[in-house]
Amino acid sequence: MTPVYNQSFLSVASAAFLLSTLSACGGASGEGEKSDSAEPRTQAAVARDPNYPEIDIPPVWDAKGQLVQPKDFRELVFLGAPLTPHGLNGGKASFPEFHNVYTQPAAFKAYRATGKWPEGTMMIKELQLVSDPKGEFPDGSTTAPSGRGYFPGPPNGLDVSVKDSKRFADSNGWGYFNFNHSAPPYLATAALKSVDECAGCHIANAEDMVYIKFYKPILDPLPLPRG
Amino acid sequence: MTPVYNQSFLSVASAAFLLSTLSACGGASGEGEKSDSAEPRTQAAVARDPNYPEIDIPPVWDAKGQLVQPKDFRELVFLGAPLTPHGLNGGKASFPEFHNVYTQPAAFKAYRATGKWPEGTMMIKELQLVSDPKGEFPDGSTTAPSGRGYFPGPPNGLDVSVKDSKRFADSNGWGYFNFNHSAPPYLATAALKSVDECAGCHIANAEDMVYIKFYKPILDPLPLPRG
Repeated sequence: MTPVYNQSFLSVASAAFLLSTLSACGGASGEGEKSDSAEPRTQAAVARDPNYPEIDIPPVWDAKGQLVQPKDFRELVFLGAPLTPHGLNGGKASFPEFHNVYTQPAAFKAYRATGKWPEGTMMIKELQLVSDPKGEFPDGSTTAPSGRGYFPGPPNGLDVSVKDSKRFADSNGWGYFNFNHSAPPYLATAALKSVDECAGCHIANAEDMVYIKFYKPILDPLPLPRG
Repeated sequence: MTPVYNQSFLSVASAAFLLSTLSACGGASGEGEKSDSAEPRTQAAVARDPNYPEIDIPPVWDAKGQLVQPKDFRELVFLGAPLTPHGLNGGKASFPEFHNVYTQPAAFKAYRATGKWPEGTMMIKELQLVSDPKGEFPDGSTTAPSGRGYFPGPPNGLDVSVKDSKRFADSNGWGYFNFNHSAPPYLATAALKSVDECAGCHIANAEDMVYIKFYKPILDPLPLPRG
């Protein structure tokens, strides 16, 4: 099994703090920040950035230092889809429900080559509800031709983390942004979340700030086919 | 809820046939065909094909008419990840367990523009087990920092369908291929499955042969962000 929290984290934080951290990081509908200074969403906005020389599609910052919603992120490289259904989380999952995680093609290739995420890497997590909000079973699962399980439904939120060791020196080089946990449209821009709200949980539980074990199966190159 | 089979199908097929169809389509480890005539997996193998003028990364056929395993399919466009865990399917799901579905960038854009899949579209489904084969709970779910649910683990199989109205005129224009339902390496090439094994279930239950309702949430363009 996967432990909820590792021992080193338990040694420095109380369970009450943990719960408040998770709750804040999970966020509620409409909690994100609004901005009236969104960058134009043009190709120019995703031109190469000398701050991120290894990255093809760099993060874009507005004049206030807020992160601009990544353009066409669904066409980036998929890394995995953890699922935390409402039906298995007391009706209120912190991240409802599928977590579809993407990264940039250049970050994907760089990680495969070096085992490190280059500066400017984005981990983009779009949330997606299951297809049937009530479910056929108490756990929220339902039945389809392929069997009993959970099937994708309406999109439900967007979180993005960015690796920038200078900008986010106080949180192991990664910054965390919440563009709302609710139906689209998501916010145009998002302000950095506090360490308590997001980074704290990644510092405590993840490897180099990414829950890499859930993405390694896809990041590991596929062996050559049998002939 | 999603009905297992729709009424029109029940009117023409017995439940026993349905079960045998699902079982055959699900397939077992090692059931796929082997071939000693795999195409070289070079860029040339994915050059444009005049038979599929709208498609950027066309399907490749070997001299026997078998489908060559699509190259670098994990870098195509993700459409959704239905999940049918062993733990909710009597310990033996037909498609274990996450179904990570991808299509080509040109097919994705064409569907968004026209609502139709162009000739040469591939729907590529990589299966992926959950992270903990025993699970923490009887349903196979486990607990992670983000909550209780199902988390991605080892890759476990590859199915591909191809739209080619001439080649597959007998099955509504789509052909179905199984590169094994087991750990990689997957097969280099795969022979067409019979209608009973795969296409029958799609003819009976899917819209234009694709379980589109599970992929529409990602295919539907994301509304522009709130400023």
